[in-house]
Amino acid sequence: MFNEDIQYVSGELCVENASLARIAEKTGTPCYVYSFNRIKRNFLELESVFASFSPLIAYAVKANSNIAVINILAQLGAGADVVSMGEIRRSLTAGIAPGKVVFSGVGKTGTEMEFAFGNGIGQYNIESLEELHDLNAAAVATRRIANVAVRVNPDVAAGGHAKISTGRSPDKFGIPLAMAEDACRAAAELSNINLTGLGVHIGSQIMDVAPYVDAFRVIACKTVELREKGYTINTLDLGGGFGIPYDNEKKFPYAAYSDAVRELIQPLGVRIIVEPGRSLVADAGLLVSRAVRTKETPLRKFLILDAAMNDLMRPALYDATHPLAPVVMADEPGAELWDIVGPVCETSDTFARQHVMKRQDRDGLVAIGLTGAYGATLANEYNSRPLVPEVMVKGSEWKVIRPRPDLAEILSRDQIPDWSQN
Amino acid sequence: MFNEDIQYVSGELCVENASLARIAEKTGTPCYVYSFNRIKRNFLELESVFASFSPLIAYAVKANSNIAVINILAQLGAGADVVSMGEIRRSLTAGIAPGKVVFSGVGKTGTEMEFAFGNGIGQYNIESLEELHDLNAAAVATRRIANVAVRVNPDVAAGGHAKISTGRSPDKFGIPLAMAEDACRAAAELSNINLTGLGVHIGSQIMDVAPYVDAFRVIACKTVELREKGYTINTLDLGGGFGIPYDNEKKFPYAAYSDAVRELIQPLGVRIIVEPGRSLVADAGLLVSRAVRTKETPLRKFLILDAAMNDLMRPALYDATHPLAPVVMADEPGAELWDIVGPVCETSDTFARQHVMKRQDRDGLVAIGLTGAYGATLANEYNSRPLVPEVMVKGSEWKVIRPRPDLAEILSRDQIPDWSQN
Repeated sequence: MFNEDIQYVSGELCVENASLARIAEKTGTPCYVYSFNRIKRNFLELESVFASFSPLIAYAVKANSNIAVINILAQLGAGADVVSMGEIRRSLTAGIAPGKVVFSGVGKTGTEMEFAFGNGIGQYNIESLEELHDLNAAAVATRRIANVAVRVNPDVAAGGHAKISTGRSPDKFGIPLAMAEDACRAAAELSNINLTGLGVHIGSQIMDVAPYVDAFRVIACKTVELREKGYTINTLDLGGGFGIPYDNEKKFPYAAYSDAVRELIQPLGVRIIVEPGRSLVADAGLLVSRAVRTKETPLRKFLILDAAMNDLMRPALYDATHPLAPVVMADEPGAELWDIVGPVCETSDTFARQHVMKRQDRDGLVAIGLTGAYGATLANEYNSRPLVPEVMVKGSEWKVIRPRPDLAEILSRDQIPDWSQN
Repeated sequence: MFNEDIQYVSGELCVENASLARIAEKTGTPCYVYSFNRIKRNFLELESVFASFSPLIAYAVKANSNIAVINILAQLGAGADVVSMGEIRRSLTAGIAPGKVVFSGVGKTGTEMEFAFGNGIGQYNIESLEELHDLNAAAVATRRIANVAVRVNPDVAAGGHAKISTGRSPDKFGIPLAMAEDACRAAAELSNINLTGLGVHIGSQIMDVAPYVDAFRVIACKTVELREKGYTINTLDLGGGFGIPYDNEKKFPYAAYSDAVRELIQPLGVRIIVEPGRSLVADAGLLVSRAVRTKETPLRKFLILDAAMNDLMRPALYDATHPLAPVVMADEPGAELWDIVGPVCETSDTFARQHVMKRQDRDGLVAIGLTGAYGATLANEYNSRPLVPEVMVKGSEWKVIRPRPDLAEILSRDQIPDWSQN
């Protein structure tokens, strides 16, 4: 969870040059804190490691969709991988060029398609023949031409968890290889569809290059085959899924990935799109929480935080582990085992079990690391806990980029009907 | 998912006398729809089956915290089991008498305790010695007396899923039996604490009476033991956890539960509290969704809905299965196998696999049953999808009790800092 933008300075954990203790004091806890320069650095590093094939880097907005986060990437020339009208609007508001927006997802509605056409969205990744026909109808209705990539399902198993593996045959994603030609034929015949290429996306939190190599071989073969049959394949969307080392694993092998792209994809002479999400933002974010109290039983010591599963769903949802660190560095190393939990009434509301740590004072601050991705976007108000605020840090400046909602405002959403008498 | 309040009338699925198709047309989909009279009936049935020991029925607000839902139960004399300041405010706004509110949870903050004292909350279930001291300090600060039940951990395994089993020794919940006397002694010695009794809560979605019997034996023995030592135990909070038949299981054995309470608890001459949540509201709710499209592959047929895992987390979070039914009854029985999925880009965004159903028209409405509990309260805005609206039906009247938030309003929460230039 530590890097050049997140480290201890004089024993206090800082994001860039801002003290987390100071941010927590002003903003209250729990709160998400992001490093501007970490996000920028991650993008530039990815651009550099991919320099030999210069892809469009379309940020997968679902990882962290705060407009201030997307804006950093927009300024650097990123595109956006979006899956809903809400994500399109966020991306455009953040300054992403419409032509660099790729609209993915198995359930695009007619309304969403028409909204996308009205805003000049650059590419539509289609996932079924029925969707292709729906897209053509919406294009005809709005007098637009849709640039379409056919997302194929390469039947490759990958990803850190069954819930986020998306490239196997029985999954809902993509068009089976055997039906790809049918989709291209239909695309070529439909009046307002411009077939530009193929897409593939095999999952999320992948730590190994092998499944990518398998998928690249499949999509390269299919490209050659379709070209021989006369179809235009100018673009290959290689998807995302680059994992990050949550648990002291080794880093994603970007060099090997780049080699595979150069060897298997670049000879095809196509425009290449990649769709990273987590890898751009996860290590730029911390969830800062305050210890409410300790609790000791003969079997366990518990540190109870004011952050909970509703604020960070990944442990409960994916059995994920996140690194933790005290905001004020311990003057001696930890020697006790602690279960670090939230206040929500479920056993899955647990951030770490048997974590080696020095005893924390009550009111001590704890940072949960690698939470810049799939943290705030999956948060909810379970147990009537307001959504966590988000803070952006750049150098020694920091600003709340989404405030904590007011409880009174949340309660005012609910209405008791006039007739609600027994 | 069908009952006297949710059934087909002339081939159209209705909640009470209101057509779901009509509600969906006006409100848009997805939307949650609740039956007023079903909630009322569930409460009255519970009251009737528990008549021989007349407990305070404190509704576990986390199951469904819409103020209009809590209001129905408040009118019937229910109390509330709450775990946060937000839930206290919801309960009081809905009309629950403060004296009938039980404040549970392992992570009550000082602010929450003072808020609770200021509002005359009736009982505090404490879960650690440290919490007891914090509670006394807050009581002293606000010049109140706290009625306290010591929640003990009976070390009983129960519950439909490890994530919601809460009564085992290594869990964060409750005070170990061996430490219960220490807690009672501390309570008796603290100036502003009034020890009233013990509490126990062994989990959620329990379908069998046996773990309750085990827990009742434990708590009854402990009560006798503590009384012999001179402690006042006037109240026993038996918790909740009554399961509902999601998957055509048999109903929770309420009669056997009542027998166990009568046999093991009633002879102690205590005031009894029970804390049902799910069992009061789950079968009163439906998530109504529209089919966006179908997708067929050689391996699978998919029906893609406009509802997703962000709207109903239980399948993704707990591997839960919910019954589904078309809103317009099929004129012939189903003969095809369908995977019914949402549009979100995760494989866990799946409501049913290999579900026997007649082919649905696109735009056809599907109701997902037994979603009145842990549906809306766990919903989030993942993939930038606005929170689902909630609708209450009573007879032929219906009203939106929480509207769908406006996307523009959601986007306006985010702020790009002035200094956010590369």
